[in-house]
Amino acid sequence: MNYQKLFFGVTQHFLMIPSIEWKDESNTVRMIDQTLLPHELVFLEFKDFRGVANSIKIMNIRGAPAIGVAAAMGMALAALEFQYMDTATYISYMKQAANTITATRPTAVNLFWAVKRMLNVLEKNLKKNPKDITNMLIEEAKGMWKEDIDTNRAIGKHGAHVLVDGDTVLTHCNAGSLATVQYGTALAPVRWAIEEQGKKIQVIANETRPRLQGARLTAYELQYDKIPVKVQSDNCSGLIMMLGNIDKVIVGADRIVSDAVFNKIGTYLVALAAKRHNIPFYVAAPESTLSLDETRKDVTIEQRDGKEVANVLGKVHIVPDGVEIINFAFDITPFDLITGIITEHGIFKHRELLKRYKSSFG
Amino acid sequence: MNYQKLFFGVTQHFLMIPSIEWKDESNTVRMIDQTLLPHELVFLEFKDFRGVANSIKIMNIRGAPAIGVAAAMGMALAALEFQYMDTATYISYMKQAANTITATRPTAVNLFWAVKRMLNVLEKNLKKNPKDITNMLIEEAKGMWKEDIDTNRAIGKHGAHVLVDGDTVLTHCNAGSLATVQYGTALAPVRWAIEEQGKKIQVIANETRPRLQGARLTAYELQYDKIPVKVQSDNCSGLIMMLGNIDKVIVGADRIVSDAVFNKIGTYLVALAAKRHNIPFYVAAPESTLSLDETRKDVTIEQRDGKEVANVLGKVHIVPDGVEIINFAFDITPFDLITGIITEHGIFKHRELLKRYKSSFG
Repeated sequence: MNYQKLFFGVTQHFLMIPSIEWKDESNTVRMIDQTLLPHELVFLEFKDFRGVANSIKIMNIRGAPAIGVAAAMGMALAALEFQYMDTATYISYMKQAANTITATRPTAVNLFWAVKRMLNVLEKNLKKNPKDITNMLIEEAKGMWKEDIDTNRAIGKHGAHVLVDGDTVLTHCNAGSLATVQYGTALAPVRWAIEEQGKKIQVIANETRPRLQGARLTAYELQYDKIPVKVQSDNCSGLIMMLGNIDKVIVGADRIVSDAVFNKIGTYLVALAAKRHNIPFYVAAPESTLSLDETRKDVTIEQRDGKEVANVLGKVHIVPDGVEIINFAFDITPFDLITGIITEHGIFKHRELLKRYKSSFG
Repeated sequence: MNYQKLFFGVTQHFLMIPSIEWKDESNTVRMIDQTLLPHELVFLEFKDFRGVANSIKIMNIRGAPAIGVAAAMGMALAALEFQYMDTATYISYMKQAANTITATRPTAVNLFWAVKRMLNVLEKNLKKNPKDITNMLIEEAKGMWKEDIDTNRAIGKHGAHVLVDGDTVLTHCNAGSLATVQYGTALAPVRWAIEEQGKKIQVIANETRPRLQGARLTAYELQYDKIPVKVQSDNCSGLIMMLGNIDKVIVGADRIVSDAVFNKIGTYLVALAAKRHNIPFYVAAPESTLSLDETRKDVTIEQRDGKEVANVLGKVHIVPDGVEIINFAFDITPFDLITGIITEHGIFKHRELLKRYKSSFG
């Protein structure tokens, strides 16, 4: 069941609460601590941008669009901290804060995009006093928060066209509400198809080693929203397609360059299996994830601490001591494996994407 | 370093201890409890065939060839238990024991092969008394134990031809010493290349969700033997090949039918990635794994309890309560993805394998 009739006769869809919010009354950033899900729903509150930066680094918050908004809100907190300084010092400290925030994770382009957007506001208003600029930065961050939800709903509306009543959608990692402010990217078409179009859709979530965002987060938020979901080990993706159980694959993206999509490690294997079985493979992401002036060779793939693999969620050690671990956080899916990219403006094949966005981005 | 000079000048290779043994002095089956590795090396001892059957079911021992030998030794224990009965009862009870043992796991063909081989000895000697038949069954089981090691060394000798000094070999799951009596199937060519040919070879082991046989067992036994090994999440297999870090893939098999290889879930994804990157993909397995009169449609793929996925090694719960789990234990790799099958008699392409073995098997 994906909806519930309330007693006064309104069809009520459930909707996962936002992963991050700006609290006006206290000028605080509040976020869900995603490392504790699905067992505990705990909120973290930050007044210091350094705390927000650390929360990105240690993945209390994760998912490319959510990281972008967190980074913007971090910049707003920095502005509040430095707003009583003289303009030159304020600017200098803001640039240092930008460096602290962008140094947290190297692959998701939304992080750099968001910080750059905040610095643009700063640079366009250098003649104003720091207090006024700070208010503008807070508004900009809050605007990005709102835009993210609107963008995701637009992704959902466009993406829902590819879903047919009865479809089973495979997804990898979590590109859902928790990876964004709300509503998700890869999961947005599923939400739209169910909630706005009344289609029956179920999701199979790859558990997504090493940090298990699929098992923990995708399963959690879909269960929260009463959307049917099953979890499998990543290793099942090939067989489940061979057995004919998957109709569509939709994943998110951390960076889309001109010749490939960077997304959670393991995405490439799912794409290879989808290609083999002629299953449509879609990437859903906002424009802010596009970085089409780059090729795959320009991107640093984050390698994280091997402990993430060797010690599952910090609780069970699975590898003999002294054995070296390889732990790439993202992989590279070339465009020949991708049926279409779903953005807030439509669904684009590779060539169409380059034509539309390379020109509009300059 | 993969060898050590002892003080008296002999080059000493390390060799993982056997996974299972028959103890003549007590007529006991002793096996390593593989569920406790890599943290504790604990031995289980059985005098009752039901205990051996359960050890196969709950995977104290696993790996197709090791399961075969355990099943044979279980039959020998059953014979010891029933040897004082009259012949008709003895035969009837032995057949019941055979059913108990073969009911433990459905996919690995070696289990059925081993039990059938023991029943053949029984059936060819029905005129002897149960005590004499029992001694023959014990000798048969011990012979299969010895044959397994010889077979694996032959697989190693043939398979080592495909390895070049400096190669990095990717393997999935554990098809090593612990999956056999000793020496391994997929890891046998690595051992032979290092120990008999002095080649430098390193192994990258996929962790192999959900039961993590790669992280726990392959890493353990290669570290024990001083063979260089690194562990990665299964999701890394595609990227690591794209980055050019893998020279060969070698995996084991649970059943080889005329049109595909059944092996640990996730093998198919590794094979798809190897094909994409033109990396040779070999399956190493003894003849006892061949079942060439079947096609993939004839084989039941074991689906195990979802708790294996949801609760990592029974220690950390990773999925929200109430979410359904899909947990296939094996997948299917078609022959167009397989460079060659390494058996104790050589390396065979698909057509050669069918030609040689379909005729010899009748």
